[in-house]
Amino acid sequence: MIERFAGLTPTRSRAVVHEGLVFTVAVAPDPVTPSMYEQSVKALARVDESLALCGSDKSKIISAIVYITDIKRKSEMNRAWAEWVDGKNPPMRACIGVDLEPPHIVEIVVTAAK
Amino acid sequence: MIERFAGLTPTRSRAVVHEGLVFTVAVAPDPVTPSMYEQSVKALARVDESLALCGSDKSKIISAIVYITDIKRKSEMNRAWAEWVDGKNPPMRACIGVDLEPPHIVEIVVTAAK
Amino acid sequence: MIERFAGLTPTRSRAVVHEGLVFTVAVAPDPVTPSMYEQSVKALARVDESLALCGSDKSKIISAIVYITDIKRKSEMNRAWAEWVDGKNPPMRACIGVDLEPPHIVEIVVTAAK
Repeated sequence: MIERFAGLTPTRSRAVVHEGLVFTVAVAPDPVTPSMYEQSVKALARVDESLALCGSDKSKIISAIVYITDIKRKSEMNRAWAEWVDGKNPPMRACIGVDLEPPHIVEIVVTAAK
Repeated sequence: MIERFAGLTPTRSRAVVHEGLVFTVAVAPDPVTPSMYEQSVKALARVDESLALCGSDKSKIISAIVYITDIKRKSEMNRAWAEWVDGKNPPMRACIGVDLEPPHIVEIVVTAAK
Repeated sequence: MIERFAGLTPTRSRAVVHEGLVFTVAVAPDPVTPSMYEQSVKALARVDESLALCGSDKSKIISAIVYITDIKRKSEMNRAWAEWVDGKNPPMRACIGVDLEPPHIVEIVVTAAK
């Protein structure tokens, strides 16, 4: 069985659950700040919300891919991550510099256990 | 058990199935058009083909990461996506601007249930 | 149950195992060479190490996303990949040009069966 949680558009889900695995993606919601730290904080809060919808939480995150638009500002995202992460249950994480659709400068894809 | 479906080169699989999960990647096959919309249409058709090989289909897609080489042209990819997606079963999706090996301007990585 | 293998920092795991799936990420360890081929060889060796920690090995890799900082040098990474890969069990693979935190020019995210 596949369970889908509606996102902002009808062509994409905010989160999908299948056989005990949760797949979710988050950006900072509106209004979008230009700060890498703030967008990271808000995107991570959005991850929390989506995991809660799915019956999971950050202690069960398996992997995270963090896409940021300026790798030179990775330390700002890292600060938000370090404040947010469950230190007893750190996920596998990769942080990658890419282009995102403005005004977004951080996007996070998470796989978690339910 | 891991089932592998051969790709164009012997060092990579087109799709891999394990315990009810399908992992596949697609680009537009030759001849490659320079249109973002056309490459998206053809890459998505290739996703359909690979899922069919694995005994799955687009209604069972869990997540998709869409890599495009020009984030300013995301709307062209979105148009192809919207025409193609199973609106009753939308996947989690992220769209990321990156570099790809020319002539490819779209590459799609999909995880689906079997 | 989720099993986590500690990485270099307390906020991230080197590898996470859940229900028979291994999620791991690797870069070339210090001292870091500027050669794309050498970094690829070393990152792939690191993948081997992490898989071994988790009770898996490269014959069981399902998918790999290879991030490199210069898509024009993909052939150098490909050479390392071709020498390393288990030709009887090739993974699904995507190779994407992105920015990484210097001095890293190759980073590899792997999903494997245990």
